[in-house]
Amino acid sequence: MSTPRVAHPDRLLPADPGVREIARRLLAEVENLPIISPHGHLDPAMFCHNEAFPDPTALLISPDHYVTRVLRSAGIDLGELGVGRTSCDPRAAWRIFCQHWPLFSGTASGYWLEQEFYHVFGIDPDRISEDTADDIYDELSHVIAQDDFRPRALATRFGLEVLATTDDPLDDLSYHRALAEDSQFHPRVLPTFRPDAYTKMYLPDFRDNVTRLIDSAGEGKTGYQGYLEALKNRRWFFKENGAVSADHGTHDANSTPLDDATAARIFEKGLKGEATRDEAAAFEANMTYRFAEMSQDDGLVMTLHPGVYRNHSTTAFHRFGPDTGHDIPFRMEYTNGLQPLLSQFGENPAFHLVLFTIDETVYSRELAPLAGYYPACYVGAPWWFIDEIDAMNRFRSAITGTTGFSRSSGFIDDTRAYCSIPARHNTSRRVEANYLSRLVAEHRLSEERAADIIVDLVDASPRRVFKL
Amino acid sequence: MSTPRVAHPDRLLPADPGVREIARRLLAEVENLPIISPHGHLDPAMFCHNEAFPDPTALLISPDHYVTRVLRSAGIDLGELGVGRTSCDPRAAWRIFCQHWPLFSGTASGYWLEQEFYHVFGIDPDRISEDTADDIYDELSHVIAQDDFRPRALATRFGLEVLATTDDPLDDLSYHRALAEDSQFHPRVLPTFRPDAYTKMYLPDFRDNVTRLIDSAGEGKTGYQGYLEALKNRRWFFKENGAVSADHGTHDANSTPLDDATAARIFEKGLKGEATRDEAAAFEANMTYRFAEMSQDDGLVMTLHPGVYRNHSTTAFHRFGPDTGHDIPFRMEYTNGLQPLLSQFGENPAFHLVLFTIDETVYSRELAPLAGYYPACYVGAPWWFIDEIDAMNRFRSAITGTTGFSRSSGFIDDTRAYCSIPARHNTSRRVEANYLSRLVAEHRLSEERAADIIVDLVDASPRRVFKL
Amino acid sequence: MSTPRVAHPDRLLPADPGVREIARRLLAEVENLPIISPHGHLDPAMFCHNEAFPDPTALLISPDHYVTRVLRSAGIDLGELGVGRTSCDPRAAWRIFCQHWPLFSGTASGYWLEQEFYHVFGIDPDRISEDTADDIYDELSHVIAQDDFRPRALATRFGLEVLATTDDPLDDLSYHRALAEDSQFHPRVLPTFRPDAYTKMYLPDFRDNVTRLIDSAGEGKTGYQGYLEALKNRRWFFKENGAVSADHGTHDANSTPLDDATAARIFEKGLKGEATRDEAAAFEANMTYRFAEMSQDDGLVMTLHPGVYRNHSTTAFHRFGPDTGHDIPFRMEYTNGLQPLLSQFGENPAFHLVLFTIDETVYSRELAPLAGYYPACYVGAPWWFIDEIDAMNRFRSAITGTTGFSRSSGFIDDTRAYCSIPARHNTSRRVEANYLSRLVAEHRLSEERAADIIVDLVDASPRRVFKL
Repeated sequence: MSTPRVAHPDRLLPADPGVREIARRLLAEVENLPIISPHGHLDPAMFCHNEAFPDPTALLISPDHYVTRVLRSAGIDLGELGVGRTSCDPRAAWRIFCQHWPLFSGTASGYWLEQEFYHVFGIDPDRISEDTADDIYDELSHVIAQDDFRPRALATRFGLEVLATTDDPLDDLSYHRALAEDSQFHPRVLPTFRPDAYTKMYLPDFRDNVTRLIDSAGEGKTGYQGYLEALKNRRWFFKENGAVSADHGTHDANSTPLDDATAARIFEKGLKGEATRDEAAAFEANMTYRFAEMSQDDGLVMTLHPGVYRNHSTTAFHRFGPDTGHDIPFRMEYTNGLQPLLSQFGENPAFHLVLFTIDETVYSRELAPLAGYYPACYVGAPWWFIDEIDAMNRFRSAITGTTGFSRSSGFIDDTRAYCSIPARHNTSRRVEANYLSRLVAEHRLSEERAADIIVDLVDASPRRVFKL
Repeated sequence: MSTPRVAHPDRLLPADPGVREIARRLLAEVENLPIISPHGHLDPAMFCHNEAFPDPTALLISPDHYVTRVLRSAGIDLGELGVGRTSCDPRAAWRIFCQHWPLFSGTASGYWLEQEFYHVFGIDPDRISEDTADDIYDELSHVIAQDDFRPRALATRFGLEVLATTDDPLDDLSYHRALAEDSQFHPRVLPTFRPDAYTKMYLPDFRDNVTRLIDSAGEGKTGYQGYLEALKNRRWFFKENGAVSADHGTHDANSTPLDDATAARIFEKGLKGEATRDEAAAFEANMTYRFAEMSQDDGLVMTLHPGVYRNHSTTAFHRFGPDTGHDIPFRMEYTNGLQPLLSQFGENPAFHLVLFTIDETVYSRELAPLAGYYPACYVGAPWWFIDEIDAMNRFRSAITGTTGFSRSSGFIDDTRAYCSIPARHNTSRRVEANYLSRLVAEHRLSEERAADIIVDLVDASPRRVFKL
Repeated sequence: MSTPRVAHPDRLLPADPGVREIARRLLAEVENLPIISPHGHLDPAMFCHNEAFPDPTALLISPDHYVTRVLRSAGIDLGELGVGRTSCDPRAAWRIFCQHWPLFSGTASGYWLEQEFYHVFGIDPDRISEDTADDIYDELSHVIAQDDFRPRALATRFGLEVLATTDDPLDDLSYHRALAEDSQFHPRVLPTFRPDAYTKMYLPDFRDNVTRLIDSAGEGKTGYQGYLEALKNRRWFFKENGAVSADHGTHDANSTPLDDATAARIFEKGLKGEATRDEAAAFEANMTYRFAEMSQDDGLVMTLHPGVYRNHSTTAFHRFGPDTGHDIPFRMEYTNGLQPLLSQFGENPAFHLVLFTIDETVYSRELAPLAGYYPACYVGAPWWFIDEIDAMNRFRSAITGTTGFSRSSGFIDDTRAYCSIPARHNTSRRVEANYLSRLVAEHRLSEERAADIIVDLVDASPRRVFKL
C-alpha cells in the first residue's frame, strides 16, 4: 500500500521543506549512477564461482564485524554467531539477531541493513522481531537460493562498475585475471596491494611473511635490499593485473625515512624477533616513506589509514582471531608525521596520497590544510566507525571551507558485506545531497553549481583520485 | 497572561515546524517520568534535617561553582560571593548576581537557573536586573521560608525517585541509613563510594587518609595488603548501605596493573611522601585496575571520569580551597589507557564500567567503539562543562552511529544545586526529543520506535546501567 | 534585474523561514556598523602612499596565500602566480585563476572573493570562467584605476574605524605616526608588537635580530637582561604610537618560566646557535611568560596563537619563501601549558590574554573553561583555516554553554587582502545572526536580549577586549 518508511524517497534528506526540495533535485542527478568502489574487502573468487549464498546468517551476520560487535555489546557470545574461527547453528544465530534488532536503531549498520533488507531482498525491516525470526529466515533462504541473487546477477543489479579488493602482496591474482578475461563479466574487479603484514615487525608472522616475500620476488637479492626489491616487483605485478592503489594500515602517520644502513640493521633484528618496539615503529615509518617513493615510479595511488588499536580485547583475539569487532581507534596526528613524506613527494601532482582517518578532529585541523595545499594529497572519505550519516555530514562541514569539493577521495565502502554496497553508496549520495542543499539554501552555491559538484563527488572524484 | 519565554512548551525543541511536532510528541512520553539521579553531590543530611534553606545566596550562588565562575570571569572577587572558605553579605552578593545576570545568557547554568526561577520559585527570570535585585531577593526569601520549599517537600514535587550522593569511603553512612529506615521518606538516597582521596599520592592528605583507612577497616593487615583489604571492606559496607556504584575521578584513563611487590614498594614511598610523579601516576593506574577487579566481586558499577586539571589557579586555591570553579579539562585518551582493564574485565556483562569524558573528541573516536563492543562498557552522558544543550546534541550525534541508543548511561545531573535538578533532567529530556525527532523526520527511525527509545533513555537506561 | 545570488539579502542566514525572519532582524542591528579590525596584516604605507592598486593579480592573487594554495592544490606552480619571490605575467595568472574558479566553491576564500567581486568591484562572480577571464581582467583593471578605488577612498567606503597592523619590534612606526597626525585620514591604524622573530632560537636570523634589538634598545645592558630591557622598551614605544596589543605566534602554549640564570645560559647558547631543540622550546615558553609579565606593566593586550607547523613543504619554502600556503596546524593543548602564566596573572582583570586556536577541539575542552573562569582570559575568534562559515557556527556552539557571549574576542579578520575586509566582517555578522536566531527560535534567548548580544559581539566586544 503506502511506501514503508525504509523506502521513503526523502530519507536522509533535510527536514526543512524548502531545503528538501533542493536536495531531491540534487539527489536525482546521481542516485542512479553506477557504483565505483575503489576500496573494499570482498573476495574476488565469489564472482568466479558465482555460487548461491549459503544461508542468511553466513551472508549477513557471521562475517560482518559491524553487526556482530553490536550483538557482542549486548552480551551475546560471538561463538553463537559463528564469528572468526567458530561455527554456529545459523538459524539460532538468526533468532538472536532478530531478537536484538531494535539495538541497531540509529546505527550505521542498522540503516544499511534495513535498506538491504528492503531494496535487495524485498523484506520490510520494520517487521523484524523475535517472533518473525523464523519466517524471515525462511523467506531470505528462499530468496538467496534464486539464480538472480547470485553474485554476478547482483553485480548487474547493483550497477557495479568498479570494485577493488584488498590483497596480500604474494597473492597470485588468478581470480582477478580470470574476471578480467571473462567477456561475460563486466565490472572491473581490481586488486589492491596491501603490505601491512610485511612491515609490522611486532606481528608473529613477520619473519615468515618476509622470508616468503624475498624468496619469491627478491630476484636473488637478500636482506633489506631483497625486501625492497620484492615489494617493488610485487607492486608492478599488481599493477599489471589492474591494481590502481596500494593500501596501508599503519599504526601511525610517521613517515620519517631511515638511511639504508639503519633500516637494514633494524630489518635484520626484526627478522630475529629482536627489534624493540621503537625500532619496529621506526621501520614501519621508514616503509611508509619507501612506499611513497615507490609510487613515484609505478604510479599506484597510496592510501593511508593509521590510528587503530587492533585486537583490543586479548581474550576475544585468542578465541576468535582478528577482525572480530574490537579494533579501537585512537588519537592521530598527521602534520608532523607526514612532513618528511610530503615535503619530498607532496608537490608531485602525479602522486596521489589519500589520507583516511577515524579521528575526526584531524579533518579541519590537519587533513584539509594538507589537501588544500599539496597537489598529491587527498582527504579520504569517512571510514569505518565514521562512515555514518551524521559523521559524513560533519566531514563535509569540516573540510569544505578549506578544500572546497575537489580534494576528497569520493566514497569508499570498505566493506566485507556485499549486499550492503548499494545501501552504502546510496547513503553517501543522500548525505552529499543533504549537505549541498543547505549550501544552496544559504545562497553559498547556485543550484546549478551544486548539481555539477554532486556529480563530480559521486562519479568523477573516485575516477580521478584513483586513476580509474 | 501569555506564557513567558522561559516556560514556552517548545523550548529546546527544533525550530522546523514539522520536526517540532514530532519532538513534542516524543517529549510527552517522558516529560513527567520520575527523576532518577544516579550520580550527584548533594548532602544526605539535608533530607534528615529538612531545614529551610537559609537565604537565596546560600541556596543558589555561593556553593555553585558553575555560577560563581561566570561571575569570577567578569572580575568579581569570589570572596564577595561567599565561595569556599569565605563568607559574604548575602544580599550584596545577590545584587552582584542580578547585575551580571545578562552574562548567563546562552550558558547551561543560565538556562537551568531561569527554569529553576520560574518552575520552582515562580519568578520570571526575564525580570532580573540590578534594579529588581532587592525585590527578587525578598520574594525568594519569602518563598524558601515556606514549609513546602523544604528539601523533603521539594523531593516529592520534583518527582525524585532515586538520588545518589558521593561519599568518602570512611563515611559512616548514618544519614543514608536513617533515610532508608524512614517510612515517611520515599526517594531512595544511595551512597556512592568515591576513593580518590585515598589513591592520589600527590595530595597532601594522602598519608593521613590512608592511615585512617587501614586502621579502621584493614582488619589487622598492614601496608598495601591492608590498604586493599580496607578498600574492599568499605566497598562492601557501602553496598550493604545501598550503594550501587563506585566513582573514580582519576587523572587519566591508564589502567595498567602493577605486580604486588611493585605496588607495595610504591605505596610505602607514597606514604613517606617520597613517590615520584611517575610512581604516583603508576599507582593510580594500578588502582583503577584494582577497583575494576573488586567490582567483579561486589558488583558495584564503576564510573570513571578522568581528564581534569584540578585547582588550576594556585592563587584561588590557596585562598578559597578546592571546587571553586577553576578545574580545567585537558585532552584525554582511553583506548590505550583502558586496554589492560577492558581486555581483562570488559567481556564480563555483569561488570558495568561507565566512561565519562569532558573531552568531546573521544566520543566518536574511542568511547563509542569501546561501548559498541565490550558488554561491560557504557558511554557516560555529557558531564560538567559539556552537560549543555548543544553539547548533548553533539554527544548523541557522535555516538549513535556506532552504539545506537543502548550503550549510554542515561542522564547524570552531577549537581550540588538541589533546586536545579528538575531543570537539568527536563533539559536532557528535551534534547533527547530534539535529537530523536530529527531522525524520525529523516526517516531513520519510525516514530513508534523513537517513542520506545526515549522512554528507554530516560527511564530504563539509568536503572539498567546503574543496577537500580 | 533580479538580485544575483551573491547579493541575496538572506545569504548565510538559516534556511528555516521562521528562524530566518529572526536572523534578518538581528542582522539589521549590526550590518552597517563600522569595521573594527584589531588584528591584521596590511601595510600601513598603503594608506600613506595611497597609490592605485597595480593590477588584479597583484591585488587579489599573488599576495593571498589563501587563494594561491587552492590553485597549488590543483597542481598550478606557485611561480606562475607570482607568489613569494617570483614574479609572473599578471594576465596569464588571472586566466589560471578564472579557469580554476569553480574549485573555490564552498571555500571561505571563494565566499569572500565573490562578495568582494560584487560588492567592491561590481562584478557578478557567477560570470567568472576561462572564457571571460580577459574581459574581467580588463574590467577590474579599469575599476581599480579609478581614484575612488584607492586605499583611502576604500577605507571610507568600507566603514573602517580601527585597523591594527602587525609589526616588527624594531619598526620605527613612522607610517603609523604619519597617519595618526593626518587630519584628513580618519581610521585609527594601530601597530601591533610581534616579537616572534626574536624569541625562536631555531630560526636562522635569531642572532642577527636579537643583536640589533639589544644594540638599539637595550640601553647599554647586554645579554639576557639587555634583551628583556630592549623588548620592554620597544613595547612602550609601540604603546606610545598607538599599539593596544602584542601578538605571539608561538610553537605551543607552554608558559613555564625559567629562572634568570637558566634563561640567560640558554640565551647565550641560542646566540651561538648551540641551543638544543628542547632548550629553544623552553626559552620560547619562558618568553611567553615574560611577555605576560610585561603586560602587567604596560597593559598591552596579549594575543597568543600557537600550533602551526610553519613552512611544511621544504621544497616550496626554499623556492618561494615563507607565508606561501603550507603552514599546517597541529594538535594543541592549553590547559597544562598555560597553567604557570594563568595561575600567576590570570586573576588580574586588567590583563587581557586572547587565546586563538586552529585546533577546534580545544574550544569546549580548554578555552571555554579557561575564559569562563579567569577574568584575564578571552577566547579568540576562529582564525585562519577555521575563519569559515560552518566553523564559526561550531565555535559559538562549542563555547557558549560555558562562557556565554561575554568572553570572546570579537571578530578578527587577520588578513593581507585589503578588499576582502568588508566581506569577512559581513560574513561574521551573518553567522552571529544565524547562531543567535536559532537560540531565539528555541526560546533560549529573548529576541530583545539577542539583539543586545549581537551588537555587543560586533561592536563592544572588540573595543572592550582590545582596550580600544
